[in-house]
Amino acid sequence: MATSERIYTASLIIIGNEILSGRTQDANLAFIGRRLNERGIRLQVVRVISDVTDTIVATVNECRAKFDYVFTTGGIGPTHDDITADSIALAFGVENKPNDEAYQLLLDHYGDPEKINSARIRMAHTPVGAQLIHNPISLAPGFQMENVFVMAGVPRIMQVMFDGLGDRLVGGRPLKSRAIDARLPEGAIAGGLGKVQERFGDIDIGSYPYFREGLVGCTLVLRGADETQLDAAAEEVRSLVRSVGGDPVDETT
Amino acid sequence: MATSERIYTASLIIIGNEILSGRTQDANLAFIGRRLNERGIRLQVVRVISDVTDTIVATVNECRAKFDYVFTTGGIGPTHDDITADSIALAFGVENKPNDEAYQLLLDHYGDPEKINSARIRMAHTPVGAQLIHNPISLAPGFQMENVFVMAGVPRIMQVMFDGLGDRLVGGRPLKSRAIDARLPEGAIAGGLGKVQERFGDIDIGSYPYFREGLVGCTLVLRGADETQLDAAAEEVRSLVRSVGGDPVDETT
Repeated sequence: MATSERIYTASLIIIGNEILSGRTQDANLAFIGRRLNERGIRLQVVRVISDVTDTIVATVNECRAKFDYVFTTGGIGPTHDDITADSIALAFGVENKPNDEAYQLLLDHYGDPEKINSARIRMAHTPVGAQLIHNPISLAPGFQMENVFVMAGVPRIMQVMFDGLGDRLVGGRPLKSRAIDARLPEGAIAGGLGKVQERFGDIDIGSYPYFREGLVGCTLVLRGADETQLDAAAEEVRSLVRSVGGDPVDETT
Repeated sequence: MATSERIYTASLIIIGNEILSGRTQDANLAFIGRRLNERGIRLQVVRVISDVTDTIVATVNECRAKFDYVFTTGGIGPTHDDITADSIALAFGVENKPNDEAYQLLLDHYGDPEKINSARIRMAHTPVGAQLIHNPISLAPGFQMENVFVMAGVPRIMQVMFDGLGDRLVGGRPLKSRAIDARLPEGAIAGGLGKVQERFGDIDIGSYPYFREGLVGCTLVLRGADETQLDAAAEEVRSLVRSVGGDPVDETT
């Protein structure tokens, strides 16, 4: 069963010089990673790229061919550096044109077409064929073109957009996880851990070292769709930690 | 002058399923982005990838051909999922072998070769030709292969590794920046901002919307190597914000 199961994959493209410069700490990756896990879709790669048309076009085209879903964040506002919609249109070889539904949203907000300046009207442009992703917080909607979901960069806005996607995303069995803080350096258990991994081929076991309060330790995270297997593997990991004198602590995942 | 200046570029490869799953919030991108800016090196792309050998090899080979510098974080410990050194060796077509200097560090720590188990000795392996990057906190050293710098994933350890690189990194003129909180939605100034950008070709002007306490606003960030130009452009941006009734506030950058 496990081997014939359809695996759904995704990539995330974070568009924005402000993330690359280190000025702004990205908060979208972790949110999207967790949400996709819950929906049984595996986030396989994230690319953070700059606001450059050619880079966006090439990255989107590479990712939409490789993954079931592509998500982008950033660059959908009204300013000169908001080039995501133009770039997505180029990637799909279609025009970026005023979208009736998006224009109506602007009109509902401003009341008078005279108040919709040329910069604001850019927010109502989408590539031909796009379906809107509603933005209940500010005026710029996101949009979906085939398997590409174009969302805002502001975390609060991106989150409501993502959570509004509903059944536009189809996934497989969600991956479940168990996490165990070994409170020991990795070297003390590395050999045994590799052997547990060999015995549980359908479980992915990761060891994540940390350095806290002057101590080096590691958290062992097990992931898999089958909870019986997962619990059996987790118990072996706890025994391993105890066998070298450790006191494993379960963490919430 | 500006047009003939050598631009130094970099990419960062973040290796780790725990970042993609959303379990761990990455903290390395922002640190490395800021430090590279200070050294006049432009971080142009970040890729977050999973612990899969083929993916690491392909990504490293693509990036080391395209950028002056490649940095990697994660996967250099002793456990079965630490496959970065093996993958880098494959990418360069060399063996991953015990490194005398790294072995001596292990021996200094454990005193007795009998205590260095087979898992721990993996931490002393580096691709043939690598130069170590010292790790004063834990035992796994990083290493440099040509223009590829392989570092730990734990932020505290990565940071001391990076800051120890000294003159192994050569950059150009650092980019300086100015940041102005417009406290207005982007749509109010988008047209004028585009015109300021057109007048200052060597300055990169970005508008970063935010949503705080129920208000939509934006911070305008200007970047460039020439501080005279930068100050002139910043003053035009402040005037623009004032011209539509705003009260711009300078932010530290």
